[in-house]
Amino acid sequence: MTDPSFALTLSCPNKPGIVMKVSALIYEAGGDIVTAQQFDDTLENRFFMRVVFRCATGKMDVPALRALLATLGDELEADWQLRDRSQPRRVMILVSKFDHCLADLLYRWRRGEQAMDITAIVSNHPRETFNGLDLSGLRFEYLPSTKETKPQQEQKLWSLIEETGTELVVLARYMQVLSDDLSARLAGRCINIHHSFLPSFKGARPYHQAHARGVKVIGATAHYVTADLDEGPIIAQDVEPISHGDTPEDLIRRGRDIERRVLAKAVRHHLDDRILLNGSRTVVFD
Amino acid sequence: MTDPSFALTLSCPNKPGIVMKVSALIYEAGGDIVTAQQFDDTLENRFFMRVVFRCATGKMDVPALRALLATLGDELEADWQLRDRSQPRRVMILVSKFDHCLADLLYRWRRGEQAMDITAIVSNHPRETFNGLDLSGLRFEYLPSTKETKPQQEQKLWSLIEETGTELVVLARYMQVLSDDLSARLAGRCINIHHSFLPSFKGARPYHQAHARGVKVIGATAHYVTADLDEGPIIAQDVEPISHGDTPEDLIRRGRDIERRVLAKAVRHHLDDRILLNGSRTVVFD
Amino acid sequence: MTDPSFALTLSCPNKPGIVMKVSALIYEAGGDIVTAQQFDDTLENRFFMRVVFRCATGKMDVPALRALLATLGDELEADWQLRDRSQPRRVMILVSKFDHCLADLLYRWRRGEQAMDITAIVSNHPRETFNGLDLSGLRFEYLPSTKETKPQQEQKLWSLIEETGTELVVLARYMQVLSDDLSARLAGRCINIHHSFLPSFKGARPYHQAHARGVKVIGATAHYVTADLDEGPIIAQDVEPISHGDTPEDLIRRGRDIERRVLAKAVRHHLDDRILLNGSRTVVFD
Amino acid sequence: MTDPSFALTLSCPNKPGIVMKVSALIYEAGGDIVTAQQFDDTLENRFFMRVVFRCATGKMDVPALRALLATLGDELEADWQLRDRSQPRRVMILVSKFDHCLADLLYRWRRGEQAMDITAIVSNHPRETFNGLDLSGLRFEYLPSTKETKPQQEQKLWSLIEETGTELVVLARYMQVLSDDLSARLAGRCINIHHSFLPSFKGARPYHQAHARGVKVIGATAHYVTADLDEGPIIAQDVEPISHGDTPEDLIRRGRDIERRVLAKAVRHHLDDRILLNGSRTVVFD
Repeated sequence: MTDPSFALTLSCPNKPGIVMKVSALIYEAGGDIVTAQQFDDTLENRFFMRVVFRCATGKMDVPALRALLATLGDELEADWQLRDRSQPRRVMILVSKFDHCLADLLYRWRRGEQAMDITAIVSNHPRETFNGLDLSGLRFEYLPSTKETKPQQEQKLWSLIEETGTELVVLARYMQVLSDDLSARLAGRCINIHHSFLPSFKGARPYHQAHARGVKVIGATAHYVTADLDEGPIIAQDVEPISHGDTPEDLIRRGRDIERRVLAKAVRHHLDDRILLNGSRTVVFD
Repeated sequence: MTDPSFALTLSCPNKPGIVMKVSALIYEAGGDIVTAQQFDDTLENRFFMRVVFRCATGKMDVPALRALLATLGDELEADWQLRDRSQPRRVMILVSKFDHCLADLLYRWRRGEQAMDITAIVSNHPRETFNGLDLSGLRFEYLPSTKETKPQQEQKLWSLIEETGTELVVLARYMQVLSDDLSARLAGRCINIHHSFLPSFKGARPYHQAHARGVKVIGATAHYVTADLDEGPIIAQDVEPISHGDTPEDLIRRGRDIERRVLAKAVRHHLDDRILLNGSRTVVFD
Repeated sequence: MTDPSFALTLSCPNKPGIVMKVSALIYEAGGDIVTAQQFDDTLENRFFMRVVFRCATGKMDVPALRALLATLGDELEADWQLRDRSQPRRVMILVSKFDHCLADLLYRWRRGEQAMDITAIVSNHPRETFNGLDLSGLRFEYLPSTKETKPQQEQKLWSLIEETGTELVVLARYMQVLSDDLSARLAGRCINIHHSFLPSFKGARPYHQAHARGVKVIGATAHYVTADLDEGPIIAQDVEPISHGDTPEDLIRRGRDIERRVLAKAVRHHLDDRILLNGSRTVVFD
Repeated sequence: MTDPSFALTLSCPNKPGIVMKVSALIYEAGGDIVTAQQFDDTLENRFFMRVVFRCATGKMDVPALRALLATLGDELEADWQLRDRSQPRRVMILVSKFDHCLADLLYRWRRGEQAMDITAIVSNHPRETFNGLDLSGLRFEYLPSTKETKPQQEQKLWSLIEETGTELVVLARYMQVLSDDLSARLAGRCINIHHSFLPSFKGARPYHQAHARGVKVIGATAHYVTADLDEGPIIAQDVEPISHGDTPEDLIRRGRDIERRVLAKAVRHHLDDRILLNGSRTVVFD
């Protein structure tokens, strides 16, 4: 699963010459571009770029490259990130009772579909809740939460994130709302799966809401978590047709399939450095 | 396009024996069932049925059949409708400036895809707005509407509906809100196409709303018109994936394709007696 | 998961009165129809019917009902089957090395999505191949097969099917071709998942074939097994768009998602008595 | 509809520095990149690039830019094309009796969705075949063809293509097979819509073939025409689910919707310089 390449993601105000300058810099550092994508948001006049490159010459001086990028980044007023793709990202998965997304992520991870190291599985339900799943070799933390204990438990969670060097937190049907403070600290690196086609049916029991409204299509939405519940930047959505014959329970069952594949796609794109934030929206280079 | 068959649609409180009683009645009247669909809404304890049958014996005594159905309908406390499918329904199409849905309906009608007679095209824009379309042989009525003239214009519209024997009114991107009164009079026989995936993005400029929210899928919704704007029973919905690269104008362009096929499907299902109302929702036997 | 209802499936030459006769018989036996679907194949003049009914009166005389159905079945020259839905079907799953379909079926079964009892997991690979999966409480049979031992192994397989009372065999990416004889004995009760959108790309390595041809959509097909390889009646198909950037390995990965959901759907429909054979095709009441 | 920008498409053996060299050249010529896409086919070791740029400085010296590109193209052993997007491409549409694709292309062209000038509509059926369509202002050529006259008629067709400066030929359900010679002369600039999900159901009456096989999904395929019938590089495909209830006539009707949107997409992508040939496959930057 190790991938001997680097990913550069960059966004900045648009002006002529960005592609040339970035690609020249990579070329001079001995890099060979494997794939590159650009997007010019003409409405916002902002430029977005993702470049994956490998070393063409056997040895790449990464610190030197970073220094050059820092200089260019300043010149372009750019947000940028350079990542060594041979290092899988460190991912923590949070889950409540419904384990279909967790089961799916674990299966894909074992198959090598998701390039990540799992730092811990954290749940507000005890380990035996997940007896049907093979958690062997994985750290499991039981962090029950009540209205009273929530602040302490979030503090424990944050300590765990820091201690384990977690880079991405995945809310795989985690039915606890994160505090504004924690949401802010995890900005751009906490992905939630919402079981509706946002912005329809925010809040609780979206499949019951969908049934009551009589929609003919249901969906799920993966988004980055922000303090504003169910309003974070959307990463991926998918839908399925339903019919009058589907009960709320049928929608929940069908929804499980949609949720797991939408979340898997969002996590995969994040791990693959394909997502850039564009205000309250995302640029997804797929 | 004439179809020598009959369609019976029926809904009533569920109890044992309905299928038997209805099918026996059809059999005794000389009918041969071509297709039949039933749905038992166990949450509402209401039963829905659609039966299409042809005459097995050469001659069917329709008035006698109606009389028998009236008796059975009373016994079952049923809403029912018997329709002779050799008579195309009489349909009026209302349109404002955007004519893609109108163009599509006309093309399908000329190809024989929609079993209807068009009573009139009505618009709040003058006939020359639609110069690109072939309206030959079709009645066109220009009914401009201002805040002040709206009541009179709606009265003219209603007179036209009555005079022409219109059975179904299609709002093919008609950008005028019908009054509560007219909505009520057209209950269950007025189909609107809304250019969003309801209940997301109600109201004006839904594609701009969708762009601003950063959704990854857009859609369109065909529904029966009720006094409650954008809240009527949904008949059909469809969606398409979009990306960060799509501007609001791109969404409008892509949306045209979705709108025209969703509206065509809803109209087709209505003309084919496939839609039954179930409170604020629909049963669609497709 | 027990469902106190009965499913009757029936097909016969079309003639007037079938729906009435069948529904009358159910009514007289004390049944209350929950859902019923009919389809008249006018090209073949053959009628298909599925009726699910529960007992309306507290007690249903099933042997008497069967006797009445036998008489009616003779009169109608019908193929028919009456099944007590409180008895889950007995299902054997065959698998080779790729376990994504097996993993998915097991997960759905544990969640109660598939109304079945698993009689055994059978593989031509040893049990440790599936160490990532929880097979606790399940019988596992290792039946390796070579060209020479194939007849004996198929004999063992057949004995196992008989001994365990297996009613449905699922080939969940089982890479061994069944003999004509075994295929015939399992006619209509052995479902295979083929990893292409049949009839495209029959035979080996379909994703490599798809890549070489440059198609823009890939798919998977669930079908009943017949002696004619990859030619059995199709139950379900699904597809996903791909792009020029997808390597054969990407197609294999994407294909896993399609395969598992298509197979799950086909098995679910079979267990739910929704599939009737119509020559080399299927009628699927969904 | 005029777009004051340029599109450069380029493919060549992969080696380091291509993006840099191309983007430097554009920058020095006064261009500002609006969007750029690259793809490295690692299996074939071939690099593909599409760059859209506008003039950043008010005036661009296009001949000078072409000269620079010619030199770079030689160095890279590249196939490349530079196109001024303010000049719509000149397109000829060929059609037989079924006019749904033609009607759709004309509607989109009138709405400004397709950036093209139509040089002529050519048919082997007389003009009155298309009386339902508005062909005003368009050249129509009736070129009936029999086995005997085919060579002469193809000669006439070729003369018409040359005389009108046609750059793209669209076979919008044109039921005549082009000769090998004409196919070769139109390589990479003749798009056909095939009414099946290729490579399934090549040849005649694909919807009847699909019905007979009992597939659960049908589709359509837009591809470049080659001498090898139904084997040309695929540009776009789309599909729709069908059921046992669909007759061959239903498939033909549903297929019309798929065909017109797949062909429109392929033509749009061609006009937008998004398609590059990669042997018998295509790279589509969408």
